[in-house]
Amino acid sequence: MASLDLYALTASEVQRQIRSNSLLLEDYIESLLARYRTRDKDVNAWAFIAPEKVLEQARQLDQIPPEQRGRLHGFVVDLPTGHNSPVYASDGPLMDASTVAILRRNGALIMGKTRTTEFAATTVGPGTKNPHDPSRSPGGSSSGSGAAVADQQIPIGLGTQTVGSVIRPSSFNGIYGLKPTWNAISAEGQKVSSVTLDTFGFMARSIGDLQGLADIFSLRDDEPPRTIHLNEAKFAVVKTAVWPKAGPGTVAAIERAAQLLRNAGALVEEVTLPSEFDNLLSLQNQVLQAEAGVAFYREYNTARDQISDKLADMARNIDTCSKKEFLRAFDTIAALRPQIDYIADQYTAIITPSSVDAAPVGIEWTGSSDFNGIWTVRVAKLF
Amino acid sequence: MASLDLYALTASEVQRQIRSNSLLLEDYIESLLARYRTRDKDVNAWAFIAPEKVLEQARQLDQIPPEQRGRLHGFVVDLPTGHNSPVYASDGPLMDASTVAILRRNGALIMGKTRTTEFAATTVGPGTKNPHDPSRSPGGSSSGSGAAVADQQIPIGLGTQTVGSVIRPSSFNGIYGLKPTWNAISAEGQKVSSVTLDTFGFMARSIGDLQGLADIFSLRDDEPPRTIHLNEAKFAVVKTAVWPKAGPGTVAAIERAAQLLRNAGALVEEVTLPSEFDNLLSLQNQVLQAEAGVAFYREYNTARDQISDKLADMARNIDTCSKKEFLRAFDTIAALRPQIDYIADQYTAIITPSSVDAAPVGIEWTGSSDFNGIWTVRVAKLF
Repeated sequence: MASLDLYALTASEVQRQIRSNSLLLEDYIESLLARYRTRDKDVNAWAFIAPEKVLEQARQLDQIPPEQRGRLHGFVVDLPTGHNSPVYASDGPLMDASTVAILRRNGALIMGKTRTTEFAATTVGPGTKNPHDPSRSPGGSSSGSGAAVADQQIPIGLGTQTVGSVIRPSSFNGIYGLKPTWNAISAEGQKVSSVTLDTFGFMARSIGDLQGLADIFSLRDDEPPRTIHLNEAKFAVVKTAVWPKAGPGTVAAIERAAQLLRNAGALVEEVTLPSEFDNLLSLQNQVLQAEAGVAFYREYNTARDQISDKLADMARNIDTCSKKEFLRAFDTIAALRPQIDYIADQYTAIITPSSVDAAPVGIEWTGSSDFNGIWTVRVAKLF
Repeated sequence: MASLDLYALTASEVQRQIRSNSLLLEDYIESLLARYRTRDKDVNAWAFIAPEKVLEQARQLDQIPPEQRGRLHGFVVDLPTGHNSPVYASDGPLMDASTVAILRRNGALIMGKTRTTEFAATTVGPGTKNPHDPSRSPGGSSSGSGAAVADQQIPIGLGTQTVGSVIRPSSFNGIYGLKPTWNAISAEGQKVSSVTLDTFGFMARSIGDLQGLADIFSLRDDEPPRTIHLNEAKFAVVKTAVWPKAGPGTVAAIERAAQLLRNAGALVEEVTLPSEFDNLLSLQNQVLQAEAGVAFYREYNTARDQISDKLADMARNIDTCSKKEFLRAFDTIAALRPQIDYIADQYTAIITPSSVDAAPVGIEWTGSSDFNGIWTVRVAKLF
């Protein structure tokens, strides 16, 4: 592969080449930076990159003797700002979030800060464009992460999903997204939108890269993973109550997935969730609004003039939302959790849409998260 | 009152005297610092105080024109370190936690940092003594907060209750503790032990001071508060499954409370919780252990040699604790929540012990939290 194409490698492949002494991290970073310089004026994924600093870190990592290198040596990730707000524009040095501390400790290199919507909570946009079609949105809130990964400016993107902020941009950008179960990875040190919904996740162009990250964060189930033969596997297609909103792209993708699995010998069943689940999206929204009120009360109380009216409206919920309604939503969701776990336990996996359709035209709106909300609200256990 | 006794005032009284121009905040802080110098060699409540810096802040606050002063002008609080660990010994300037930012914005003055157990999570002690009897523990994890408030070195203490870390030291030190419902106040920016248990709360020597803080953080129920006449009130005494552990002090306190209320014309009923609640303390502990494993995975992963074996054991749970058991505990607790709410809705208030008995002798162990755990695990809604 010509060195100009180094940027297109997955993190796992970069790691393999570094281990076999056929690649220096510095050269790989040079390639990513060249890609960034060529492309980001069109994509606008990054809020901040300091090329010299990143190169210096790469040189330092190159000098670590192989036997002392971290398990993520060669992995390059972004740091979504999670703010995009003047409230935090003048922040001094902050302590790393737990996730960032663990990534650094294991040898990962942080390339820079990518753009998000305001606090990754509203849809006040970061101006990032979909690298496949600049007339379209890359999704959000992790807009810059998804676009930079898809555009081969970086192999791995980080993000926090409160409704659909990892899965939706992954779908719109044509990359893989992994949203573990809530609190499988500590969100400590990240800006909070909704404490029971905010879920740390990853985006990448390869399953192997996602696996490398999952290992570092000890994402695992009780039983060790085992090989699944597709002709013994049983899949549930769960279209959910919002299926009528699915566009032709999503309908075709789900049908194709089912057909491919059937062709490989798997059993594929369409499963309709019990009717109690029909209302789950609005219950999820009630929880989100009430918890966002608590989370953004600080900015509302200390910096009202620097936050959008949308965010202020969310923060005001601390006063106006009925606690009784919130509690009812919270308890109803909790009662649905064992039900979906019971259904999921009967299948190898559940197949469900990632988004309503292809990325929407225009970059002001980051797209619908209607297919994501019910899976973020802790009714599913993945790890 | 002689100026030497200023330290004994409540925050509300300090505020009143400042408003009426009969007190300068600087003089009050001088009095608190004198009390600190006289007493803290015996109590050992503080991890860090910078007297000149605090006095300078007091002078600055004194110079703010009365009409521009915050609603907490005159309130002085501590900042529990929440760490007591060498891992964070060299921390540079950090961003304020949400609670601290809101307190500052509203004019409160931070006196210094008080001692906690290691990460406020283990019982590795801070060496703080009970100001009423130095042979006894002040409780924990908010050991320094509770002791400093009881010792009149400060009017208001902050703390985070994961099991009993606000209510227990309040009880052992003979002061008032307020633990709101989980996430009624955002814990963002505080060190996490257990994301679904950590609950920000206050300690003070007066109900008025607690009310002042509750107002700032918008702690309120759906209906506005109304005057309750005791002869129309109905109280539940809930002794819980751990009542056999109650010592003579606790038994006498509960009996006396019931008798005082009956004498004032109130109805007082002893309520036995359904048998499903008997196991709640161990379910709570399962959730705590599993979530602490997630929360302290960062320190375990990045600084194993600087954390205690106890904390490392908690962090290792991320690998060894069964996810299935954790989920069962989590779901069982969730299903009990509507039950306790139904019971609580039938009473003006529930009366239940704050601790097993008086503060235990010895300062190595911060005492039992058996009477606190089931009320911290989100089965009760207060706000």
